[in-house]
Amino acid sequence: MSASRIGQMLPSRSVSVLNGGNVWFFGGGTQYPAGYLVSGVRSMLIPSQLSPFSPQSIALSGVSERRRGLAQEKMTENGVFSRDKVLTIDTMNPTVKNVEYAVRGPIVQRAMQIEKELREGVKKPFTEVIKANIGDAHAMGQQPITFFRQVLALCSYPELLNENMFPEDAKNRARRILQACGGGSVGAYSASQGIDCVRQDVARYIERRDGGVPCDPDNVYLTTGASDGIVTMLKLLVCGEGASRTGVMISIPQYPLYSAALAELGAVQVNYYLNEEKCWSMDLSELERSLAEARKHCNPKALCIINPGNPTGQVQSRQCIEDVIRFAAKERLFLMADEVYQDNVYAEGCQFHSFKKVLFELGPEYSDNVELASFHSTSKCYMGECGFRGGYMEVINMDPEVQAQLSKLVSVRLCPPVPGQALMDLVVNSPQPGEPSHTTFMKERTATLSLLAEKAKLTEQILNTVPGITCNPVQGAMYSFPNISLPEKSINEAKSLSLSPQALGQAPDMFYCMKLLEETGICLVPGSGFGQKDGTYHFRMTILPPTDKLKILLAKVQEFHQKFTQQYS
Amino acid sequence: MSASRIGQMLPSRSVSVLNGGNVWFFGGGTQYPAGYLVSGVRSMLIPSQLSPFSPQSIALSGVSERRRGLAQEKMTENGVFSRDKVLTIDTMNPTVKNVEYAVRGPIVQRAMQIEKELREGVKKPFTEVIKANIGDAHAMGQQPITFFRQVLALCSYPELLNENMFPEDAKNRARRILQACGGGSVGAYSASQGIDCVRQDVARYIERRDGGVPCDPDNVYLTTGASDGIVTMLKLLVCGEGASRTGVMISIPQYPLYSAALAELGAVQVNYYLNEEKCWSMDLSELERSLAEARKHCNPKALCIINPGNPTGQVQSRQCIEDVIRFAAKERLFLMADEVYQDNVYAEGCQFHSFKKVLFELGPEYSDNVELASFHSTSKCYMGECGFRGGYMEVINMDPEVQAQLSKLVSVRLCPPVPGQALMDLVVNSPQPGEPSHTTFMKERTATLSLLAEKAKLTEQILNTVPGITCNPVQGAMYSFPNISLPEKSINEAKSLSLSPQALGQAPDMFYCMKLLEETGICLVPGSGFGQKDGTYHFRMTILPPTDKLKILLAKVQEFHQKFTQQYS
Repeated sequence: MSASRIGQMLPSRSVSVLNGGNVWFFGGGTQYPAGYLVSGVRSMLIPSQLSPFSPQSIALSGVSERRRGLAQEKMTENGVFSRDKVLTIDTMNPTVKNVEYAVRGPIVQRAMQIEKELREGVKKPFTEVIKANIGDAHAMGQQPITFFRQVLALCSYPELLNENMFPEDAKNRARRILQACGGGSVGAYSASQGIDCVRQDVARYIERRDGGVPCDPDNVYLTTGASDGIVTMLKLLVCGEGASRTGVMISIPQYPLYSAALAELGAVQVNYYLNEEKCWSMDLSELERSLAEARKHCNPKALCIINPGNPTGQVQSRQCIEDVIRFAAKERLFLMADEVYQDNVYAEGCQFHSFKKVLFELGPEYSDNVELASFHSTSKCYMGECGFRGGYMEVINMDPEVQAQLSKLVSVRLCPPVPGQALMDLVVNSPQPGEPSHTTFMKERTATLSLLAEKAKLTEQILNTVPGITCNPVQGAMYSFPNISLPEKSINEAKSLSLSPQALGQAPDMFYCMKLLEETGICLVPGSGFGQKDGTYHFRMTILPPTDKLKILLAKVQEFHQKFTQQYS
Repeated sequence: MSASRIGQMLPSRSVSVLNGGNVWFFGGGTQYPAGYLVSGVRSMLIPSQLSPFSPQSIALSGVSERRRGLAQEKMTENGVFSRDKVLTIDTMNPTVKNVEYAVRGPIVQRAMQIEKELREGVKKPFTEVIKANIGDAHAMGQQPITFFRQVLALCSYPELLNENMFPEDAKNRARRILQACGGGSVGAYSASQGIDCVRQDVARYIERRDGGVPCDPDNVYLTTGASDGIVTMLKLLVCGEGASRTGVMISIPQYPLYSAALAELGAVQVNYYLNEEKCWSMDLSELERSLAEARKHCNPKALCIINPGNPTGQVQSRQCIEDVIRFAAKERLFLMADEVYQDNVYAEGCQFHSFKKVLFELGPEYSDNVELASFHSTSKCYMGECGFRGGYMEVINMDPEVQAQLSKLVSVRLCPPVPGQALMDLVVNSPQPGEPSHTTFMKERTATLSLLAEKAKLTEQILNTVPGITCNPVQGAMYSFPNISLPEKSINEAKSLSLSPQALGQAPDMFYCMKLLEETGICLVPGSGFGQKDGTYHFRMTILPPTDKLKILLAKVQEFHQKFTQQYS
């Protein structure tokens, strides 16, 4: 334990720290006060798990070089010794540092701060923040389905079963769920895979949806939202080091859960680009290019598809899905189909085709062999029940030994939230014709989906009137992902900024969206958060705000884009 | 792509596959039918991420050696080509294979199967399975707190706010929670860190609990049960390879979430033994021994404590906690305090002391420096609301840059379940004197805790009357972890069995518990699932069954133990 007094210049870098909704910027070159003691020389860790392709790996290793071997104590003003943290940005898990999640990233943090400023009376050129950054239907005013909430209330407080204010079918559903719960309480743990009768209902739903293709409830796993299932599946798939590291093919643009999970797991993200010119469809040739490229430096094992698409709002054709399945079979890829928007199809001529159904229609050569995991959720479609974190995944053709490992793995977290499981049950087992709640249920469901269809059309139409904005039809899901032309001058100005070590602050469309937020109060997510072809720029906006607010939003975007273009021309 | 017909002898091993409640045993030496084609030679992955200390790493690498390079297609009877899986036990993530979770392990799977057999009319020497394997209070008949469920029903179906069947304080709590939700709906995502007002309520609760020690709501993170928070914290801490791999100190016996999470993250599990002779207390000398030993082959960074203890039911003294904090400060360890049983203290003279309170009482040298994360949950105490997956963690003295990474990391999963957050709020903001629900709430709370105290005493007393069983006082939590003497003959018989590749089936106390289950219908978890000193054997049983069933259970254990001892003497 050698100790000596030093006045050390700590490494210079700019760091933006986000915490509890506040953004702090630490400038570079901090000169620490005198009074440091070097104590207990301890070797710091080299961030060896960092992706060799990430820009941070280079930046961080430099920092580590300088800090390595310096564990410090300092004397504070009142004479108390203060020591360096055990857990610092340099000693923490480097894979976590690589994680990015734009949907709740810096722009949303800033939006929350602006809302706070507005409440505190700070004057802005607008009076409210309109959030179109996240697929959060209820937050945007969508009403929950009455039947679902009645059953959930009955499950929460079974005394209500004695009240005659609830329809009989709601009571029956609640009784059935409660009977399947330990001690008749949603407060008991369920089986880790999910409540038996809920998994059975899910299986029957899948069979109906897929025209009779059989579904074994033992292959259904209830999850904490779809995210949980997706991360669990990726966790099973990922292994290896160096050139044998697992690669996972994801679409670009993608939903950033995928890139975040792959970064955290230390897997290789293998990008394939959706074809913007053909309404964000999947091209077989692009899949082939991407895979061939990836095989040079990793071991691609899985292919992820989001259909209907997030953030791109397309609905893949049956032919396209067939092509993808044949490709996966030929190239030996595990398929992961994110189908959480399966009810959100708006465009004429478009239809949702589940990967499972198409797989089975291709015959036993495919249906007996291709490994597939499909994901669904209570958060999207007409329900929009994000807060309950309900979801399921179905695994098909999974190796029984691997499936045993999956069952074991999910048992560690005990069980998905039981209210979310109950809700998932109601989604797959909704009121049937002849039941007292059927009419209201259908009315509410249809109204929500029709309104979404209207808003999808409205969004596409208005955006396409703006010079410099090109928007594909919002065929499904809840998002438009328009292409925006940015003037060269704005691109250069964005690139000259260095607000964040993630370099996200420097993306031209981040610059654009941040300016849009500051000037109009509209909160969108820049395309760079989802990935896009080099040199193209986009933003993702949800179609969820109430129609009047959506119109205001679109008018403001229109006005802003024109002003922005002029300003930087 | 070279292809040739082979009749390959696949590796011989016994595998137990658990799936959907069924246990299948595959015997060794399967001779696959002819008709194999070796197609597409693809290099399989060496399980390099396996712990070099695990027995599987040796066993599996042998299997991989034999299978490597063999990607096979076989011709099925109807002439269709069938291919090897992409994802197999050999190509999957090896860290997942190392995960074990005894609380829901083979013995519980078997219990579920026996229950099914009983329903199907299979004759057994008992008529029901009594489960004392998991801290699942409601499943064992504990009633939920009325007030909590009223508020949850109101939050689920706000129409009920118009009914006069609910007390005003329940309505007020529901209104307050709903106002803090996006669109006034628990179906909206919350902030990833948790609903603001809930975090504020948690902070005030912690301040009250700890006699005024300040708590910043920005340091409170709501979680999906305590497990989620614990895994998240471990994820931040773990990194490095080889001798610089992160080590995490955990008690033995431990709650197997810790060992499972560490296995999955590829960290080194550093065992310190609780002192069974001194009622499972923590010994400073043992901590020192454990740490010194660990430093020879890894980089120990964190120390986990469960207090009150799971599975051991002890309540650590204030002095002990002080010693642990001083030790952590001196040795530069991040403290993780699992305090989910903070209300479950039964023994006279015992009291719950939070690590945070003791930390602050030790003065600024500690309170300004020692990094601590503390975990709580809605699942235990008097609530027992496991199914809602509610919880929080508070982080203290965390490096702001790391905390920003934590905030980013939790945002990827969007948010903890909102009903669980609402429930956590009610726990930390329960009815106050003068409010209409206060009397009933206090009555229910006291009744539950008193009953648990009675059952804790009953369990200890009866078990200690059995020759060969020694049981420490159940001072707190929900478990007893008695020491059982097993005859040499039974130990040898257990060891001669090889039912499972996890070697868990061979542990003598697993053999004992499995026999107990088959003969009496009582489901306990063997001590080997939690860890114990070599040559000692235990089981964990919860004190949760209703008193009459608990008495039956204890009488059956008594009888079984005597019979077992005779049989193998």
